[in-house]
Amino acid sequence: MPRLTAGVDLGGTKIQTVVLGQRKIVGSSRALTPATGADAVITAIAETITTSISAAGASPADLVAVGIGSPGTIDTRRGTVSNSPNVPGFESAPVPLGPAVSKALGGVEVRLDNDVRVAVRGEWKRGAGRPYRDFLGVFVGTGVGGGLVLEGHLREGRGAAGEIGHTTVKDRGRKCGCGRLGCVEAYAGRARMEATARRWHKAGRRTRLFDIMRARHRDRITSGVIAAALDKRDAMTVELIEEAVWALSIGLANAQNLLDMEAIIIGGGLGDRLGAAFVERIRAATMPRLHVPERPPQFLPTELRDLSGAVGAAVLAGG
Amino acid sequence: MPRLTAGVDLGGTKIQTVVLGQRKIVGSSRALTPATGADAVITAIAETITTSISAAGASPADLVAVGIGSPGTIDTRRGTVSNSPNVPGFESAPVPLGPAVSKALGGVEVRLDNDVRVAVRGEWKRGAGRPYRDFLGVFVGTGVGGGLVLEGHLREGRGAAGEIGHTTVKDRGRKCGCGRLGCVEAYAGRARMEATARRWHKAGRRTRLFDIMRARHRDRITSGVIAAALDKRDAMTVELIEEAVWALSIGLANAQNLLDMEAIIIGGGLGDRLGAAFVERIRAATMPRLHVPERPPQFLPTELRDLSGAVGAAVLAGG
Repeated sequence: MPRLTAGVDLGGTKIQTVVLGQRKIVGSSRALTPATGADAVITAIAETITTSISAAGASPADLVAVGIGSPGTIDTRRGTVSNSPNVPGFESAPVPLGPAVSKALGGVEVRLDNDVRVAVRGEWKRGAGRPYRDFLGVFVGTGVGGGLVLEGHLREGRGAAGEIGHTTVKDRGRKCGCGRLGCVEAYAGRARMEATARRWHKAGRRTRLFDIMRARHRDRITSGVIAAALDKRDAMTVELIEEAVWALSIGLANAQNLLDMEAIIIGGGLGDRLGAAFVERIRAATMPRLHVPERPPQFLPTELRDLSGAVGAAVLAGG
Repeated sequence: MPRLTAGVDLGGTKIQTVVLGQRKIVGSSRALTPATGADAVITAIAETITTSISAAGASPADLVAVGIGSPGTIDTRRGTVSNSPNVPGFESAPVPLGPAVSKALGGVEVRLDNDVRVAVRGEWKRGAGRPYRDFLGVFVGTGVGGGLVLEGHLREGRGAAGEIGHTTVKDRGRKCGCGRLGCVEAYAGRARMEATARRWHKAGRRTRLFDIMRARHRDRITSGVIAAALDKRDAMTVELIEEAVWALSIGLANAQNLLDMEAIIIGGGLGDRLGAAFVERIRAATMPRLHVPERPPQFLPTELRDLSGAVGAAVLAGG
């Protein structure tokens, strides 16, 4: 058996794990994120890794390293995660996630990084970003995350680079989850789109979004619910998506005018779900806003889709 | 005599030249940009260089290289300038500025770059940017130019990086010189501020701007005219500067949220003229818009002021 590396994409809802051997996905596993605290999350992560190794027909002894992408504030040296409000047990004080997963797997090396940065790394090294030295990765999901590869380096800044979702597209505009007004995420993030839909619905506007949500036994407006409502030409959903495209077009044009990049790669839960047609709408809306329209960036969907993060985490671990 | 390098900042109004010896300014010269065509501009550039060398008490034989910063599209390899609407003779087809200046000076090496990029280089290597590996230089003058140093490299992108002046701060906002609407430059560039003042004045609003302009025998609202009107608390000027600060605060916060830089350095004709108080107003307006307000960038005025470009051009030439 070749040397294996595991990559883990830790999210508030699910844990997605892949195992790579010779740069290929040879096993994978997915689990719901336990709601009972950090110890349960650590155990679940270790289990998805051993399950993925079994699925690859390999033995735990073949595993040489693990990479984990996590939301929140990451101390890459210590392997800790803090300030991650959506992952049970990781909300505030630092949790030594790296050392704990290492211990659960018999001492294997574990590397940690921010969830968005590992997803950018995945697309850069194994996905749509392979041809480029310069691109912006935009992940349109519950929120809107972003990461930059500039001149062949993943940009970190002082730890907080890439926040395209929190660039302002409308001064004193719609309230964002970050507390400020008029951010890209306030219009294009699924959570804020849902909050807006609920407000409009309460004010008497009609929509099929909540019927579709209930029919699918969901308690929130998932990307699948939005896609289904769009298919049915639900007017409110059409308007919400128009606003998302508008906000993204301003944010992306501003980033392009400042950085003159080769490509913009669009993924995330909602971005993947709406796919190439969504990317094309964003491209068409961004074009008139470019300062050098004769040399636009390529607009591309992700290639790895919902595995960008897990594959990128495995790449972080040397896979 | 030590080896000398000359740096030339070519503008639509004036040519500013410095001569460096052992990294210090040993001579300088300034001339109005001839209005009669490219040949006259080339001759004037060569004259400012020989004048600066004489002022340094040196001989033309001591000159080892020349750097020139020019507006427009620069082919650094061929040494040509094109599409530079404000420099007579350089409006459209490529002019071989580098080879022509070299010939006029007996074959000395000449390097060319974009005017904004050489100004960023000047502040980076010899000015306020010295302590930083990451900063945005913003030049608030007739227009609003910008340049980025990221991880110790001057960012070029595909030749057009740094256009902070053409990031959108208000969708469908005020008309910009670039033809689009709502750019930073539409509010913070001197030319667009003047156009706005003329429009408001024509519509019946009172201002002392044009009286001050005429008293100073000017035919346009210079940075000095704006500063004088501000000192007299002219209400229209106060409003124009408030709008400039507002537009800059959105553009700069967006750049900072995307890139997480160490510093933002503000210069240019108007920026230098209004000085530290203007930089402080921009800082105060930008702070509430930062995604990581606990770790803001430093906000600094330029150190070299109106010599950023000429010094940067000399640095480009190895000085």
